[in-house]
Amino acid sequence: MEAEKPITACVLIIGNEILSGRTQDVNLNYLAKGLNEAGVRLMEARVIPDIADAIVVAVNEVRAKYDYVLTTGGIGPTHDDITSECVARAFGVPLILHPEAARVLEASYRERGVEFNAARRRMAQVPEGAELVRNAVSFAPGFRIGNVYVLAGVPQVMQAMFESLKGELRGGRPVLSRSISCGLAEGALAEGLGAIQARYPDVDIGSYPWYRRGSYGVSLALRSPEPGRLALAGDEVASLVRALGGTPVEE
Amino acid sequence: MEAEKPITACVLIIGNEILSGRTQDVNLNYLAKGLNEAGVRLMEARVIPDIADAIVVAVNEVRAKYDYVLTTGGIGPTHDDITSECVARAFGVPLILHPEAARVLEASYRERGVEFNAARRRMAQVPEGAELVRNAVSFAPGFRIGNVYVLAGVPQVMQAMFESLKGELRGGRPVLSRSISCGLAEGALAEGLGAIQARYPDVDIGSYPWYRRGSYGVSLALRSPEPGRLALAGDEVASLVRALGGTPVEE
Repeated sequence: MEAEKPITACVLIIGNEILSGRTQDVNLNYLAKGLNEAGVRLMEARVIPDIADAIVVAVNEVRAKYDYVLTTGGIGPTHDDITSECVARAFGVPLILHPEAARVLEASYRERGVEFNAARRRMAQVPEGAELVRNAVSFAPGFRIGNVYVLAGVPQVMQAMFESLKGELRGGRPVLSRSISCGLAEGALAEGLGAIQARYPDVDIGSYPWYRRGSYGVSLALRSPEPGRLALAGDEVASLVRALGGTPVEE
Repeated sequence: MEAEKPITACVLIIGNEILSGRTQDVNLNYLAKGLNEAGVRLMEARVIPDIADAIVVAVNEVRAKYDYVLTTGGIGPTHDDITSECVARAFGVPLILHPEAARVLEASYRERGVEFNAARRRMAQVPEGAELVRNAVSFAPGFRIGNVYVLAGVPQVMQAMFESLKGELRGGRPVLSRSISCGLAEGALAEGLGAIQARYPDVDIGSYPWYRRGSYGVSLALRSPEPGRLALAGDEVASLVRALGGTPVEE
């Protein structure tokens, strides 16, 4: 089982608002957790601007490199929403009006007495061959083409889209985690921690210092798909903390 | 002036804890705002794991592509802190003990009666030829080599390092912004907004829908280094909102 090849993913966050500092991204953290639960390892994320060539190049680079790509942002009705056309270009297919997406959108606008104008019609455009990713929040769908899922940027909508697609993801074993906090300094723990990491190459051990109201300490985060190895490595970390005079606290 | 080539940057966020969803990154947003104030355009950000080859490849790819690269994370004393050695590898130079960094760290530990052990000594290692980036929060420095600034991952320390280096950045004109909010739908604004964008190619106009407690609307964010053009385009956007029956609110 240990040699099982992990299923990998990359998230592409498309939007000038993240790069200008106007908006604090929260989608990456949501997707990171959700992918992990689905047994998919998020290996990279990129934040890229609303520039067509940059989007096309990034999509083609990462879809060749990872099992899944998830994009967020740029699928609304305005001029700066260019993700769908860029993904079509990346796949070398035309952008078409998806009949069912158009029907659902038109019906929802008609019900509200709102015109289904050209801008709104853009939200029903997908690359030829794409399948819709529906969501419970908005009538405007995302879509999947090949191994690329194209999702909204608005967090509530993005989350609803992810919930509707995550059952499709063909994941490996989820990575389990165990986190042990203590009031010791990283520099005191480092040698022993490195020795434990060397004995457990199949457990990823991260060391994250924290500072709170004048006190400090370290969180030691262990991650592995293998519960037995995780437990053993975690117990060794807890013993190390005790041996150095600290009190390990499971988080 | 308009043809002035923008000064660009890329941020590399190095850390498994961001990709696993354990930690919500806040460094990108801080750097995005700070770079913008310094007249540097953040064009891309990447989140990459604590894997040496991935770090080396990413550093070399982006340092060739952008004027500045800023990395965060991976410069502490533990086994998972591999940024400094990876940046040295990317530049093809050895990792050396920086005499001044070692002296300052050793003195600070001695004063506290703490051993300056091998793990702590790692924090004084930099690629040969690097200059230290000091900070007011921690005795452990960041460093600069070529166009790459290597900063801490802990936000307070990272911010102090950025404050001490930002005076060195050779920026262009800062990008100014104006944001106008209204209670209209994006789909109603899209056509007129696209027409304004077409007339102001030197002003970047973004449209960001918002939903709050049952009401909805759009923030229209305009950005340009040219105050006159920004004002004109903003006035046109405000007029468009009024013409469609909305009330423009400057944010």
